[in-house]
Amino acid sequence: MARWEPNAVGRLQDAALDLFRDRGYDETTVAEIADRAGVTPRTFFRYFIDKREVLFAGADHMAESLATNIANAPGTSTAIGAVVEALASAAAASAESAELFRRRQRLIQKHAELRERDLIKHAALARSMAKALRRRGVSHPDATLAAEAGVAAFKVAFDLWATDAKRRSLEHHVRDTAHGLSRVVRGDGGGLKAPKRS
Amino acid sequence: MARWEPNAVGRLQDAALDLFRDRGYDETTVAEIADRAGVTPRTFFRYFIDKREVLFAGADHMAESLATNIANAPGTSTAIGAVVEALASAAAASAESAELFRRRQRLIQKHAELRERDLIKHAALARSMAKALRRRGVSHPDATLAAEAGVAAFKVAFDLWATDAKRRSLEHHVRDTAHGLSRVVRGDGGGLKAPKRS
Repeated sequence: MARWEPNAVGRLQDAALDLFRDRGYDETTVAEIADRAGVTPRTFFRYFIDKREVLFAGADHMAESLATNIANAPGTSTAIGAVVEALASAAAASAESAELFRRRQRLIQKHAELRERDLIKHAALARSMAKALRRRGVSHPDATLAAEAGVAAFKVAFDLWATDAKRRSLEHHVRDTAHGLSRVVRGDGGGLKAPKRS
Repeated sequence: MARWEPNAVGRLQDAALDLFRDRGYDETTVAEIADRAGVTPRTFFRYFIDKREVLFAGADHMAESLATNIANAPGTSTAIGAVVEALASAAAASAESAELFRRRQRLIQKHAELRERDLIKHAALARSMAKALRRRGVSHPDATLAAEAGVAAFKVAFDLWATDAKRRSLEHHVRDTAHGLSRVVRGDGGGLKAPKRS
């Protein structure tokens, strides 16, 4: 019964996004996604543990490619520099999937259970980068801090990018937000204003 | 039937931690937690939506107190300075619950579903602080970056504290890790070492 199913993951992801848009996320079943993609539900579950996971195809691959990027970073890189370059490279590599990512992001924002899964995936990216940094001799808390700070900036960059009327690239936003993080952590930008009356 | 149940939340939390330790997290039911705390399961569900949530009692209160701290920060504070002070104050205020937090943290590390809930609670802390910063005139991406960077440092500080053989205070670790974050984001600490052979 096993058939060759070319690009089943891509087709399942497209089918899921179409159905979530047309019919609503909560209303769509795994059986319907599989049916629209022309595969069996069993094939769906070969690739994804549940309905949420179909939206996060590629997250494991991204974690690996971030780690590879850090493994290959020049010895002149700082820890945070290597993290930002890895994230910017991943952003550049994903440019052709931009429209799919934007659709996905709008959906994630609307559903608490998708936001939860998104947090878990981002935490996995940070762990992967922290581990890669430690293999390059960065000590424990510094490696984790650089990776977590980078992922924090990446999340902000992703949100800015998904809603950017000027449609600048994700790579642009990643680099711009990394500069913003550096500025903020240095404490540039002056003091707080008086609180607004509520 | 409604009885006055003094400190039901605290008793439920203690009962849960005892049962999770003695019997295992997966094996313990809400009914057993309620029974040990001397309340009905209905009372449990008045305070917590599920078994996981009993471990995160206080997270909402912490989000509020961080926001209050930022609302009252002096006008000379920078955004990141106000965030670090808010987190250090919360850490200092929780000193008497240190042993409970350590037990809780060990449990969270062991269970994926608790780590997920923990991520969600930390994301809520960041949102609360970002909102408070915006009310003090900090612009959108900067407010979110300062809050997310602060929470990233706080998570690292919490892990270091929970396993600190010297038993230094959480406040100490929060301040120390905040300095570490600043150093890492500035890129201090030099270049990466050659990758280890695997």
